[in-house]
Amino acid sequence: HRDAAVDLAEAEEFVRRVHAEHPDLGSPDARLAAVRAQVAATGTYCHTSVELAFGAKLAWRNASRCIGRLYWRSLVVRDRRYVTRAESIFDELVQHLHTAGSPARRAIRPVLTVFAPARPGVPFARVWNEQLIRYAGYRAEDGSVVGDPRYVQFTEAVTERGWRGKHSPFDVLPIVVQTPDEGVRVFELPESAVWEVPLAHPDLPWFAELELTWHAVPAISNMRLSIGGVEYPLAPFNGWYMGTEIGARNLADADRYDLLPVVARRMGLDTSSDRTLWKDRALVELNRAVLWSFDRAGARISDHHTESHRFLEHVRKEERAGRPTPADWTWIVPPMSSAATPVFHRYYTELDLRPNFYPDEEAA
Amino acid sequence: HRDAAVDLAEAEEFVRRVHAEHPDLGSPDARLAAVRAQVAATGTYCHTSVELAFGAKLAWRNASRCIGRLYWRSLVVRDRRYVTRAESIFDELVQHLHTAGSPARRAIRPVLTVFAPARPGVPFARVWNEQLIRYAGYRAEDGSVVGDPRYVQFTEAVTERGWRGKHSPFDVLPIVVQTPDEGVRVFELPESAVWEVPLAHPDLPWFAELELTWHAVPAISNMRLSIGGVEYPLAPFNGWYMGTEIGARNLADADRYDLLPVVARRMGLDTSSDRTLWKDRALVELNRAVLWSFDRAGARISDHHTESHRFLEHVRKEERAGRPTPADWTWIVPPMSSAATPVFHRYYTELDLRPNFYPDEEAA
Ligand code: HEM
Ligand code: HEM
Repeated sequence: HRDAAVDLAEAEEFVRRVHAEHPDLGSPDARLAAVRAQVAATGTYCHTSVELAFGAKLAWRNASRCIGRLYWRSLVVRDRRYVTRAESIFDELVQHLHTAGSPARRAIRPVLTVFAPARPGVPFARVWNEQLIRYAGYRAEDGSVVGDPRYVQFTEAVTERGWRGKHSPFDVLPIVVQTPDEGVRVFELPESAVWEVPLAHPDLPWFAELELTWHAVPAISNMRLSIGGVEYPLAPFNGWYMGTEIGARNLADADRYDLLPVVARRMGLDTSSDRTLWKDRALVELNRAVLWSFDRAGARISDHHTESHRFLEHVRKEERAGRPTPADWTWIVPPMSSAATPVFHRYYTELDLRPNFYPDEEAA
Repeated sequence: HRDAAVDLAEAEEFVRRVHAEHPDLGSPDARLAAVRAQVAATGTYCHTSVELAFGAKLAWRNASRCIGRLYWRSLVVRDRRYVTRAESIFDELVQHLHTAGSPARRAIRPVLTVFAPARPGVPFARVWNEQLIRYAGYRAEDGSVVGDPRYVQFTEAVTERGWRGKHSPFDVLPIVVQTPDEGVRVFELPESAVWEVPLAHPDLPWFAELELTWHAVPAISNMRLSIGGVEYPLAPFNGWYMGTEIGARNLADADRYDLLPVVARRMGLDTSSDRTLWKDRALVELNRAVLWSFDRAGARISDHHTESHRFLEHVRKEERAGRPTPADWTWIVPPMSSAATPVFHRYYTELDLRPNFYPDEEAA
């Protein structure tokens, strides 16, 4: 569909919504006429700054898998639609990470950087990375993996292009920018752009000896942002972490860092049978370590209990504003102690509202 | 729809399936003709013993919320279609519980007892109880509840009919049988029919002092069994427990026994903030106590890890037999440590296949 002209009905609905939720903008009529004329002449139209910023916020508000939406109005939107050269794109990604958070400021804020929209029939720039910061995975002859098994293929692809990792379990991957004019370029992130948090545990001194670490800023870089019929193939965004993403998924999943057996052994648990609930016990301690370490480092992170309450607050707020909150139960409900969180005990409206973020079939 | 005649298409499809999965029964043609004739004459038809037993097993196999379906062929089906008097129904429920499990045999097996089908336009017998064994809930003046808050209303209803509970936290509720001829009758379950397991913890000696207990047999008694167009409004069934049903729901939910704060306090946890994950820690210990105590008592119970693996084995087995396994992710995935179980990491076919069990709108 990227070769087709912008869907005028979607464009008009979006413009009307922007005006409806911004009474100060007045009637949408003049703007609607301008959009219609631009689409007729060029097949697409150019968002105003207000439309772009509000469109990105709406995309977040409509992201039915996201539990963190109470804060949707606070999104910082960086308009970089004019940036198209590979090196400039990379510089802006680095700048994005600096804006998102730094140990010096001890703060993390939600940021989205939007690059050029897709124009009908014209190739566009993209970034291969799923997230701006992720760790390499190296598969050994015996099939075992050092690092994050999820990124073994990505690591091999960048290695083929000359990147050299240190083969540590937490090597930050380089950014791969692909532009129509310059092809594929590989850039190493400067250390200053990558805030990392070494993990330790409030009660278990040996935990620090595991030498685990995780990055403070989760920045998804492979989703397409769709606003009023215009597609932005490159629009990386970040929030702050919810602890379980790290402690109950990235570090715990059997096909990721698979650390439950490691933690359980150090805890001295009986791992001979699942029935002793050793996985459950190790899982809780791993998650305590994540929350405690992030707090110690001043890196904002939320726990799944608090974020669940906030999400329900969001649902209530939206209800009061007369809006449904589309939500996907299977993603909203946290991946541990789920019935102990209030989001477990209800159903949600499932709706695909635009603007929104979509998986990019063409991204890595 | 209970006043309407049996849906012939559904009846025929069922008879064909029975014959298809029982090659020894030969061609379904003669039976199909008989069913058609019976429906034409009476508006319904009478299941053969084979159809009834296999129909009940299919209803289990099609129960998309049930993780325990690997064992569907092992269901013991008790044909009590001829039992209609209140006292006889009650006796059969007692007998069901004896068949399902007893401390003497140290075993629990899946059993279903099927009573008379609904006939077009004719009132039928039912049982008010959601499960055959459940505990009373008593609301005090100050709003607090002794026992299970879920059954406060039920407890009030039976109290109005003369039942007197001991006001302990674990008073087994009486069975309420309602028949067209005899109205509502209240029966006390004999102690011998109620296998109970006192809860203690493998490592925490104070746990036994909480004086918690739970019944060994979960027997759902308010679902309608629908087989080949015939509705069985009273067809209680039981399996064995998965530990989380007790430890992560019945005893843990804030609107049930709400024991996480109690356990956490005894564990000496810092409950000042959710961020210490005190709920998660208490939850794990509560569930360890459940599994360990049931094991000690010889009451079969499965843990969520093992049952998850078995369910995926069931899905694979069904696949090999060329059948889909309809499943509801939100019910199949266990309510704690969910991402640590393999059922979390995939999607399922959602299908409403018959035979099946349905919530009975007319039951309490
Ligand atoms: C502010 C703090 C935020 C928190 C705590 C948060 C939390 C989460 C969590 C826990 C998930 C599920 C992730 C997973 O299981 O893989 C998620 C998904 C998602 N979030 Fe948020 N989020 C935040 C900010 C944002 C922002 C700023 C955006 C966009 C502007 C956003 C858009 C999304 C989207 C599109 C998904 C689905 C991703 C996918 O399909 O893979 N979130 N969020
Ligand atoms: C053999 C051991 C069994 C195990 C371990 C098991 C496990 C479970 C679990 C964990 C649930 C979810 C309960 C909840 O969250 O409230 C469930 C639901 C269900 N099971 Fe099973 N089950 C077993 C046997 C059976 C049998 C024998 C039947 C019927 C013949 C059955 C039919 C169902 C149905 C209909 C539901 C959904 C109940 C509802 O909608 O409230 N199960 N099962």
